[in-house]
Amino acid sequence: MTRILGIDPGLQTTGFGVIDVDGPRLAYVASGTIKTASADRGNLPARLKIIFEGVTEVIARYTPDQASVEIVFVNVNPQSTLLLGQARGAALAALVARGLPVAEHTALQMKKAVVGTGSARKEQVQAMVSRLLSLPGVPGKDAADALGLAIAQAHAGHSLAALAQATTLARKTHASYRRGRVY
Amino acid sequence: MTRILGIDPGLQTTGFGVIDVDGPRLAYVASGTIKTASADRGNLPARLKIIFEGVTEVIARYTPDQASVEIVFVNVNPQSTLLLGQARGAALAALVARGLPVAEHTALQMKKAVVGTGSARKEQVQAMVSRLLSLPGVPGKDAADALGLAIAQAHAGHSLAALAQATTLARKTHASYRRGRVY
Repeated sequence: MTRILGIDPGLQTTGFGVIDVDGPRLAYVASGTIKTASADRGNLPARLKIIFEGVTEVIARYTPDQASVEIVFVNVNPQSTLLLGQARGAALAALVARGLPVAEHTALQMKKAVVGTGSARKEQVQAMVSRLLSLPGVPGKDAADALGLAIAQAHAGHSLAALAQATTLARKTHASYRRGRVY
Repeated sequence: MTRILGIDPGLQTTGFGVIDVDGPRLAYVASGTIKTASADRGNLPARLKIIFEGVTEVIARYTPDQASVEIVFVNVNPQSTLLLGQARGAALAALVARGLPVAEHTALQMKKAVVGTGSARKEQVQAMVSRLLSLPGVPGKDAADALGLAIAQAHAGHSLAALAQATTLARKTHASYRRGRVY
């Protein structure tokens, strides 16, 4: 069994989601958000401190084996790009400081893994994450994205394992995964 | 006496410089660079790990009281902006994780504090840092910038202290500081 921590980094809100992966089986462990609103908007070091300590606390509480972080892209606003970059840098620092292997996935890859199409809307990601993990309700958007990143990594790891094993079962699982079935 | 750690963040090379400040007196403690070349260029988490651990090691070795970090700006290349942002985020995370108060200065402010003009060239910063700290030689560019950031913060802190004391001496010191005199 592998425990994966998904992180959707942002300067205002960083989503996190933890799942357990046992072959094709996925189990929800925890999810939530780290919000920096308690710090002064202009105090970037204080905001990065909240992100770093928040991610560190999540790692300490749930002891994941690996992490999956969204690859962020340049924004139309260069200043926003710079701020998002710094938020992501602080989150990644918390992961690597605890020795976690970090995989990176784009939002497109995450949506493909979770919904089956890269053009999926936020609501579709939320609904599919809820179904894949048999959640009683729908997680918030940031937490859903983070859980989706963990699922994308489970999928990538599983695909690699499937390749190694080269079993028909593994290939079937892969196929039904992409259609969003829970198993 | 206050010990200040200056950090000039960069994804390839992060400069650091440590000085002791006792009123108007500045004393060199250490300086150098943290280079990420040993990690794969494409492995961003590994490169950020080197930056985070490098800054953490500098803090552990020299036990500064506060930090001064260069404010970075958006680059003409948005992808470079994003990468620089992440490097700076990892460096800042290391500082705030150790509870260091962080001041931020632009390169312009640093050059004004060290050379007296914001349009100073790199070589002028290196030469003036060497003179201000009575160094036997000229530090490398990244280390010089980091030492300059520590000096800018010493200057800012000293100016604040001078304001509080409102002594003629303090104002004189301020004036000679801008002309780059060593005292």
